[in-house]
This record gives sequence, C-alpha cells and structure tokens, in this order.
Amino acid sequence: MIAALGAGVMASALATPLCDNGHEVHLVGTHLDRDIIGTIQQTGRHPGLNLELPAEVTAYQLEDIAAAFEGADIVMSGVNSFGVEWASEHLAPHLRPGVPVLSVTKGLAASDNGDLRILPDVLAQHLSPALRAQIPWAAIVGPSIAGEVAVRRDSCLLFAGSDQPAVDMLARTFRTDRYHVWTTTDLVGAEVCAALKNCFAFGVGLAEGVLKARGESDSPYRNHNYEAALFAEGALETSRMVQVVGGSTETLLLLPSIGDMYVTSTGGRNVRVGRLVGEGMNFTAAWEALDRITLEGAAAIRVVGGALPKLTERGVIGAGEFPLLRHLHDVVSLEKRLDMPWSAFFGGEQVSSGA
Amino acid sequence: MIAALGAGVMASALATPLCDNGHEVHLVGTHLDRDIIGTIQQTGRHPGLNLELPAEVTAYQLEDIAAAFEGADIVMSGVNSFGVEWASEHLAPHLRPGVPVLSVTKGLAASDNGDLRILPDVLAQHLSPALRAQIPWAAIVGPSIAGEVAVRRDSCLLFAGSDQPAVDMLARTFRTDRYHVWTTTDLVGAEVCAALKNCFAFGVGLAEGVLKARGESDSPYRNHNYEAALFAEGALETSRMVQVVGGSTETLLLLPSIGDMYVTSTGGRNVRVGRLVGEGMNFTAAWEALDRITLEGAAAIRVVGGALPKLTERGVIGAGEFPLLRHLHDVVSLEKRLDMPWSAFFGGEQVSSGA
Repeated sequence: MIAALGAGVMASALATPLCDNGHEVHLVGTHLDRDIIGTIQQTGRHPGLNLELPAEVTAYQLEDIAAAFEGADIVMSGVNSFGVEWASEHLAPHLRPGVPVLSVTKGLAASDNGDLRILPDVLAQHLSPALRAQIPWAAIVGPSIAGEVAVRRDSCLLFAGSDQPAVDMLARTFRTDRYHVWTTTDLVGAEVCAALKNCFAFGVGLAEGVLKARGESDSPYRNHNYEAALFAEGALETSRMVQVVGGSTETLLLLPSIGDMYVTSTGGRNVRVGRLVGEGMNFTAAWEALDRITLEGAAAIRVVGGALPKLTERGVIGAGEFPLLRHLHDVVSLEKRLDMPWSAFFGGEQVSSGA
Repeated sequence: MIAALGAGVMASALATPLCDNGHEVHLVGTHLDRDIIGTIQQTGRHPGLNLELPAEVTAYQLEDIAAAFEGADIVMSGVNSFGVEWASEHLAPHLRPGVPVLSVTKGLAASDNGDLRILPDVLAQHLSPALRAQIPWAAIVGPSIAGEVAVRRDSCLLFAGSDQPAVDMLARTFRTDRYHVWTTTDLVGAEVCAALKNCFAFGVGLAEGVLKARGESDSPYRNHNYEAALFAEGALETSRMVQVVGGSTETLLLLPSIGDMYVTSTGGRNVRVGRLVGEGMNFTAAWEALDRITLEGAAAIRVVGGALPKLTERGVIGAGEFPLLRHLHDVVSLEKRLDMPWSAFFGGEQVSSGA
C-alpha cells in the first residue's frame, strides 16, 4: 500500500499506474485539500483532474493520517514547494526505517550563504538523524503533466534516489506499459533540473507578451526564435547549476531538464504569468491579474535567483554566469523592467566572436 | 556585397540584418525560383515570406548569376538539402580564393559505407582541391524561423566555420541588435545538430496524431508527455551523433541542437506530416496528402537512419544506440507501423533499473 500526503493533481494522478499494477493507494489531504478529499469521498472524482480515481484509492482527511499511513510500503509526499516544511512536520510521526519516501515536489531551498538544498533534505528535517539515515529518499522527476499520467498517456520518468535497490523497487512498483521509468542515484542533479525548468518555463512565456507589447499580436510571424533562444540558454544554465550544486553529467538528466522544460513550456500558469510580464506588467500586477495563483516558477526564481549574488560573492560561480536566471530574478523579485540580456547568453556574444 | 544562390525564405530573410547593417544583397534564384524572382523584380515583395524585401536587395534570374556574383565579399548558398549538388556545380565558376561561402542548408550526406558528411563538403565537390582549400567554409545554424528574422524578432544564431577570422568577419557582417550571433570553429558539430533536429521535429509531430488514432482528439489531456520524451531522447541521440561524426561538446551547440529542435517542433511541415503518420497513415500516403511537399526532416531521416545499420555493422555505434532515429527510419523509409520503442530510450529502461 502506498500512502500519500497531499491530494494535488500529481500525487492523485500517480494512482493510475499504481492501481494498474494492483496496488492500493491511501490519499491524505493537507488542510488545504479539505474540499478535494470531501469530493473524492462523496463522488470518487478528483475535482482538479476532473477524472474518476481508480477504485483502489481511499481518500482521507488530515486528521485520519495515522490510520491512512499505518503499514504503508511506500510514503509519497505530494505537497507543493510551499508546503515542504509543513509536510516534514506532519509526516515525521508516520515514517519508518526502510520505508522509502518519494517526493513529487519540484523546487529548491537556499541556505543563508546561498548554498542550495534539495527538497528531500527539507522533508527530512523534523526526523532524528538516526531515522533520517534509515529512510531511502527518492523523487520522481521528468516530463509529466499529471492529467496525462492519469489517463495513461505514454510518459517517460526518472526516479532518483540515494539508494539504488530502493529506487529499483520504486520503479518496479510504478512502471507500466505506458508509464516508463528509468532510475538514477543522482538525486541532487535530478532535483536541481526539476526546480530550474519551472524558472525557464516562466521565461519562455515572456515571448508572446513581448509581441503584444510591440503591437504585433496579429503578425503571422510569432516570437518562437525568442522562446527557443531562452530554452537553449535555460538548458545551459540548468546543466551549470547541476554542476554547482554537485550533481552528475549523466544523460538521464535530459528527462528532468530539457524534457520537463519542453512540457512545461507548452502551457500552464508559469507561462501565463510570463506572458503578462512580457506585455509590460510588473510581476506583482501580473500575479494579481491571475488571482495570485500558486507559482512554482516564480518561487524557484526567487530562491535560486536570490542565491546567485551570494554564490558569486563567495566565488562559487562567475559574475557572467546565469545571465537569464539573474534577469528573471530582477524581473520577478525586484520588479525591474524586462530587458533581455541577449549578449550575455552562452558565455557572451562578443567573447566568442573574438571581435 | 553579399551574393546568394537560392531565393528561398531563409536566404531572403537574411537580407534584413544584412541591409540593416548597410550591405547590398544580390539574390539569385535557382531554376525552381523563377516565379519568386519575377515577383520580387516586379513588386519588391518575396511571395514566400509575404513581405517587402529591403531596397538594397537586387533579384536576379539564374542566367544572370555571373553579373550578380561579380565582386561578392561573401557568397551564400540558400538552396535546400536536395539542391546542394546542383548548387556546387553552379556556384563553382563564381567562387574566389578568400571569399567565404556561407551555407544555410540543413542536412547531411552519407557515403556508401555509412560515414556521414556535412553539406559544405558536398558544396565544395565541384572545385579544384587548391581552390577548395582557399575558401573559408561556414554555416549558419540555430533556432531561426525565416519570417521572424525578416521582421526583426530577437534571434540567437551560431555561425560555424573552419576558419575563426573568417567566421568572425561573417558574424560582424550579420550581427544587429536583434540578430544575435555567436561563433564556433566546430563546423561538423554544428551541421550534425542542424540536420538531426529536423528528424526529431517529425517525431514530435507524431504525438498529436497518436491521440487522434486512439479517438481521444477531444480529450482535455493532450499528448505533451509523449512529445517531451521524444524531445529528450532526440537531444541525446543528437549529441551522440555529434560525437560519432567528430564534433565537439561545446555548449554553443545547444543553439542548433535543442534550440532549433524546440523552434521546429512548434509547427511546420515536418510536424504536420508526423501528425498524419501518428494517426496511422503510412508515410507515403501522408506525404501525398500534403501534396508531396519538400520534407527536410524525412530526407534527413532517410540519410542518417539509412546510415545507422552500416555504422552498426562496422562497430562505429552500438546496436542499442539511436533507437528513436532507427524507428523513425523504419516508419519513413520502410513504411513500418508506428510502435514507439520507449524501453530502448535513454540506454534502456531495464538496464539502468538493475531489475
């Protein structure tokens, strides 16, 4: 039995491959998921996915977490990046040695000195060091829109965990003929990629807005060259950040880096708010125009972008590195005007030309 | 003065940055461009771009090529991949020592033993070895939809050439505050990336068709996870092919590889024919349904995919490598049924799981 805390679309969608493989799923809502759980209990449908959940799913309100987690073979954390500290506290009493904890949250946390930490580390912080060491920590990363997983579209995922046998067990538990799973022990690299793709999806959203700001919304020629250049620079900055935080260079990271960046750039809220900022709105106004929706991309830009000056000051990264991420931080956190630093991309336009 | 052979949309669009920098452009049509040249001569508009060309552009029919190329500082080849041999023959009498030849054609050629050759080598084949050695060969690669370049959308390009001073000169000639140019001497790596992105854009197109074949065209859940997985595997196979053919690992190749793959996947004819094949049509039927349009993607799949068995037989690549490209070749050249080999992607789904 797999017990999940957080009844958002992703944790709920994962019930499809799990139940297809004959497993039971206990889905426990956070205090913010009260209505979602109520609806599932009454109708069997998940209101966010707008789909019926498999019959093997049982939904629980937060006060029933102890009963729901009793005897779980796998624990899943399905909260968003804003809820990880909260989840750490609420999961702690229910975690057991040897039972893997699998995170689907995308994001990073920053220490005061700018060092970036992966979210499974935050998730572990309310545990005793002894218990923490006995739990196999893992994460699911890679391009997967939740609803597509729920309706069995082919999806390729990377399961990352510090412990290879545990991550193999997790892969076997989830893998179906539509849900394709690879594994890696590079949890750090996988988490960095997953967090950064949200930053750059926001960036790609700017392109369409820029067109509107120039009064060229009706032009037959769109702004795809702009998007593509940001996409490529985003990929470069992602792989450099993996290196900075201490991940590997293995090719499986293509799934959570450019694969997930591609899928996130096809739409969604990060792209939408990016579009408004591209039109010339400042970030706060754009966010308010979208009813202050939860924005993982903006959150990641704040955390990672805010860490960059500290990492630069300490000599960990060069002042010319991460020009896109620095500018996205200027725009999102400091409300600066969008003015894409094209010539700083790819190591600098002039430098490599020798001109 | 820049003289171009081939009046397609890309060579014509490049007149915008060139003329913005005060240069004159002589645009010479091939025998297939007769109507395009006639229209430009009469109206000043390019019918493919549906835009007025800059006043500094002069259009010439093929019989006037000698006059058009007389005194050119830069020669540009704007033919498509099907016309490179033809272009070699027709350009040969007009090339001069020290005058760079810049190619905008995307594709590769294969030798009988499966070795892949870049198109500038094909372009050079009608020259004496002495003259060939005295010409700086170069290519423009990177994400750029022609019409967007013509209307001055921000675009980031990579100019690749064997000779750094020449490629720097070319970069300075084209670079504007909207047309951003980086340079590399890795002409081979750049050309391989540019050719392969067309193969994978065809692949990405399959996703939407697959949905239709399953009767789920109206589903709110699309098939973006499928596209993204192909995109990531395509990126992996591109970088491996760069290695096989002898290119570098420099990060600027992100522009012609994933940057250009991203932009090509946003639409266009390769995506459209892929969609029909995804629906279940065989390739020839799909191609006929689209009035036998010129398909650079299918051409590249035939050339590169056809070379893979020979390279495997000679031990240059492993039998498990390039599963996506091999399957695209099966579908396009051998009319096989689409059956995506997911488990073979990323080095193999089972291998890395240790299961």
